[in-house]
Amino acid sequence: MSTSNDTKKSCLKIKWLASSTSSEWLTQAIQNPIELLIDHAHCERKAAGFAIQMMFRYINEIGLCEALSPLAREELEHFERVLFVLKSRGEYLKLLPAPPYGSELAKNIRPQEPERMLDSFLVAGLIEARSHERMSLLASHSPDKELKDLYADLLQSEARHFSLYWRLAEQRFEKKKIIYRLKELASKEAEILSTLHPQPRMHS
Amino acid sequence: MSTSNDTKKSCLKIKWLASSTSSEWLTQAIQNPIELLIDHAHCERKAAGFAIQMMFRYINEIGLCEALSPLAREELEHFERVLFVLKSRGEYLKLLPAPPYGSELAKNIRPQEPERMLDSFLVAGLIEARSHERMSLLASHSPDKELKDLYADLLQSEARHFSLYWRLAEQRFEKKKIIYRLKELASKEAEILSTLHPQPRMHS
Repeated sequence: MSTSNDTKKSCLKIKWLASSTSSEWLTQAIQNPIELLIDHAHCERKAAGFAIQMMFRYINEIGLCEALSPLAREELEHFERVLFVLKSRGEYLKLLPAPPYGSELAKNIRPQEPERMLDSFLVAGLIEARSHERMSLLASHSPDKELKDLYADLLQSEARHFSLYWRLAEQRFEKKKIIYRLKELASKEAEILSTLHPQPRMHS
Repeated sequence: MSTSNDTKKSCLKIKWLASSTSSEWLTQAIQNPIELLIDHAHCERKAAGFAIQMMFRYINEIGLCEALSPLAREELEHFERVLFVLKSRGEYLKLLPAPPYGSELAKNIRPQEPERMLDSFLVAGLIEARSHERMSLLASHSPDKELKDLYADLLQSEARHFSLYWRLAEQRFEKKKIIYRLKELASKEAEILSTLHPQPRMHS
């Protein structure tokens, strides 16, 4: 498994991630395919929920709903696809304790506007970027052909979703400020993932 | 405008509504097409939000996410369609004070399970049924060809959504109990709408 090179390559695709995923994560993920799938389904439904929450919060913001509503639909479609694979293997959704990743990242969203909006876009974008990086690894290394293909299909969208959040930020904020803040948040994101969470998760 | 006959006909299509919409509502709606469209967009996004909320609440409930996720996607698609029409007319979403309809109906959802689940399905179904009835009226009586066609297209889904919530209830609860509770809730629903809300809304 030439993980270190692969992770570096994958990381380059979305240049903002401040770290590459460790080979420990990949080993953990590959050894627990069902738990990871269930967690992945939760990630997709949470991503849809987040997009809809943003639509609700900024309902008057021209151009936001037009971008976020199709994104939420796509996340739901992925959720259904992962659920289908789970069911075909005699499994189903179940509540899994979430890793600290999402809640720790969310703590960095500044509470006042317009910083709150910018940070929300960037945090959402970073999560998509990390999902993209990890799905690329799974698409390359999973020994399970069906899962390999599933991840290969889905990861394309994750990169698009990162770009969408980036674009939403770019349309509303000064580029220098976005880059500065994205670097700060990317470094926090990398820090959160620097210790492998003991439970196998997409963001463990 | 032969409203009274038409509303009776439309009401028959989904037999559970306990009252027909008044001609006063139709007049109010037709006189305020843009405000109604904006309100309609909000209804679609709220319906999507509700479906996703139910998925989150009952994540372990086999068969629920499979039904509600595609429904949420369809509601979002309708939201985007209404938004497109609004924008083509130089309008956009804006926050509108909601009529008491939704919050009053929600008060009838019993807090304990499994009654809470049953009531949630039935209240959601009734809202879809009422939307269907009112969109039928708009599709017949709107003097605006584009809006007439829009409502005619969208109302088909509302009837399907009612059936979906009905089916979700039927798969989990005794038919006699469902019918009894649906009658009770339908009567509350009719009561809430018995006085026309002064602001033009899909559920005024």
